[in-house]
Amino acid sequence: MAGGSVWVFLASAFFGSLVLNPFHPCLFHILARRRLPHDYHVHDLATWRDGLVAIEDMYVRGAPLIGATAAWSLYLAAFHGDDVRQAAATLLESRPTAVNLRWAVERILEHVDAAGSTDSLAAIIRADAERICEEDVQICLDIGRHGLPLLERISRAKNGATVNVLTHCNAGALATINWGTATAPVYLAQQAGIDVHVWVDETRPRNQGSQLTAWELARNGVAHTLIVDNAGGHLMQHGQVDIVITGTDRTTRCGDVANKIGTYLKALAAHDNGIPFYVALPSTTIDWNLCDGVTDIPIEERDAAEVTDVRGVVSQAVTTVRTTATQTPVSNFAFDVTPARLVTGLITERGVCAASEAGLTGLFPERAPA
Amino acid sequence: MAGGSVWVFLASAFFGSLVLNPFHPCLFHILARRRLPHDYHVHDLATWRDGLVAIEDMYVRGAPLIGATAAWSLYLAAFHGDDVRQAAATLLESRPTAVNLRWAVERILEHVDAAGSTDSLAAIIRADAERICEEDVQICLDIGRHGLPLLERISRAKNGATVNVLTHCNAGALATINWGTATAPVYLAQQAGIDVHVWVDETRPRNQGSQLTAWELARNGVAHTLIVDNAGGHLMQHGQVDIVITGTDRTTRCGDVANKIGTYLKALAAHDNGIPFYVALPSTTIDWNLCDGVTDIPIEERDAAEVTDVRGVVSQAVTTVRTTATQTPVSNFAFDVTPARLVTGLITERGVCAASEAGLTGLFPERAPA
Repeated sequence: MAGGSVWVFLASAFFGSLVLNPFHPCLFHILARRRLPHDYHVHDLATWRDGLVAIEDMYVRGAPLIGATAAWSLYLAAFHGDDVRQAAATLLESRPTAVNLRWAVERILEHVDAAGSTDSLAAIIRADAERICEEDVQICLDIGRHGLPLLERISRAKNGATVNVLTHCNAGALATINWGTATAPVYLAQQAGIDVHVWVDETRPRNQGSQLTAWELARNGVAHTLIVDNAGGHLMQHGQVDIVITGTDRTTRCGDVANKIGTYLKALAAHDNGIPFYVALPSTTIDWNLCDGVTDIPIEERDAAEVTDVRGVVSQAVTTVRTTATQTPVSNFAFDVTPARLVTGLITERGVCAASEAGLTGLFPERAPA
Repeated sequence: MAGGSVWVFLASAFFGSLVLNPFHPCLFHILARRRLPHDYHVHDLATWRDGLVAIEDMYVRGAPLIGATAAWSLYLAAFHGDDVRQAAATLLESRPTAVNLRWAVERILEHVDAAGSTDSLAAIIRADAERICEEDVQICLDIGRHGLPLLERISRAKNGATVNVLTHCNAGALATINWGTATAPVYLAQQAGIDVHVWVDETRPRNQGSQLTAWELARNGVAHTLIVDNAGGHLMQHGQVDIVITGTDRTTRCGDVANKIGTYLKALAAHDNGIPFYVALPSTTIDWNLCDGVTDIPIEERDAAEVTDVRGVVSQAVTTVRTTATQTPVSNFAFDVTPARLVTGLITERGVCAASEAGLTGLFPERAPA
């Protein structure tokens, strides 16, 4: 089966998350995250609307992967002769918080606009989508290379004893094309022979930590321990955490970090216990138009069922149970914003910098105000 | 059915959690918390070992209720002619963190020691157990009366707009004989006509918030909204929380507070946002021998299954699903310690005081060092 062999190829190159099927250029494959860790299933996307559903229903998640999926979706729209602009508009509406989605779609539309009437739209968009994926792999590797010295320093300071990293949500290989963002330094540390162990926050309500991060760390042989989101503060008080590394969905030019709900609480605990708190990010997730993230980043409210219903396995069948009484009112904010003052540093593909406008424009001088 | 009628009596007096069956002095009844909110079931305890199981397996939980259950268990031991001292020793071992358990058992053993050879041991212990329950109801009411002005002040400052209380875990009527500790001011505020609304932390891993606190607030008509444990910080950043009130399992004489894991994170967020953070406690949970709670309070580690397995309802049947891959390593600390510096005040049955040795000995001068 072509899908299978592609997957094997993919798995051998670490394990990425999205790939065009070389035998069927009208299909691309994603690992169906929503069924992990109980089912290991590769999902075929055949039309741009499949890609939309994958984004909307969170079969793909994580800023870079959402962007790449949108890019491949536009390729499928062009391949099938659908209206690319209408597809782009619909995709943009599907996840308003996802900066990468907007970035990928706008980049492709620019090239589409510039195309001559005889050019193959599908070929143009496919080249773009491939470049987006290649660039993403390179960006994640670069984030890993810049983050690695942070872990090396801790390892040296501890005379080679275990380096304990705490992470929240999944900013791993499963949220990118490969390597992940927050996990890239961890995977490189593991390859460099550093004794590294990851505390994995469960990450309620969607359990991305227990169901995705724990799964991918296990697949890659990285020592890890699952904890509830409530536990990080206690571990930090007792010297069990050396560094926190999370991802982000959107970082302002002043260094405020929007990430999965609960990140702010871990940043507070790290700050209270003098533990470095780093955020790993591709520069595509920086929102250069915003400074104060707490006031200016709109926070998505999601379905109450994410809180009340929990998916798991009973008698070998994947089953969803309702954990609450039927009438319980629920509020479900998906993200929170960690103020820059609590962030020790940002790990980007160009290096590590302070979570501030000066820090970011130091690495990205082309963004500095004229 | 006698059990039923006792329960009706009980329910009419608010709804308490534990009562001796007047028609069967060898039975007492508890509301089986572990089946809430899906099942509403009153459980009969017929021997002291039933009480032990109820404590160990968390059919009863909450410091005061654990103490009262231990007291009634010793009564059942005496009633059936079992060895009261051996029962006491076994009960003491069952929950090492529970100060109330020790307090209730030691109080009864003192009276047993003082009893003459012709006295009925069962009658002595029963009188003690009844007093412990009556005292607990009175203590909770007094905590409520002292906490109420805090909510009244917020209500006045907001010109009668909704007072938003955030609470963690269940320090409610279900954790005491009646009224609860953290919930007592809320219930009294509700009775006083104050517009009060409670943000209920889910409280992973055991979901006491979503399954107990939400249930008892709904039963009592108190407006509430369930949130994941990760959400409190975001709500506080956006002015959605006016006050935090939690319970505690153990408070040191210097005001450090051991409570359900995750309490510390909420205290940090309250502090960061200038929101008052109060802890409601009966003075029986104060450990006058300890000062530094972070170093000196041992924190129970519990079964990994509490984290990996989640109980809920599917197709009207209560079912437990495993949410993680089978091999995922888990750590499960049950409590954390919130340092006194993050606690705005302690609400006790004698009044509200600073979370400090001076504050506590001001209310409990008999405990001041000579």
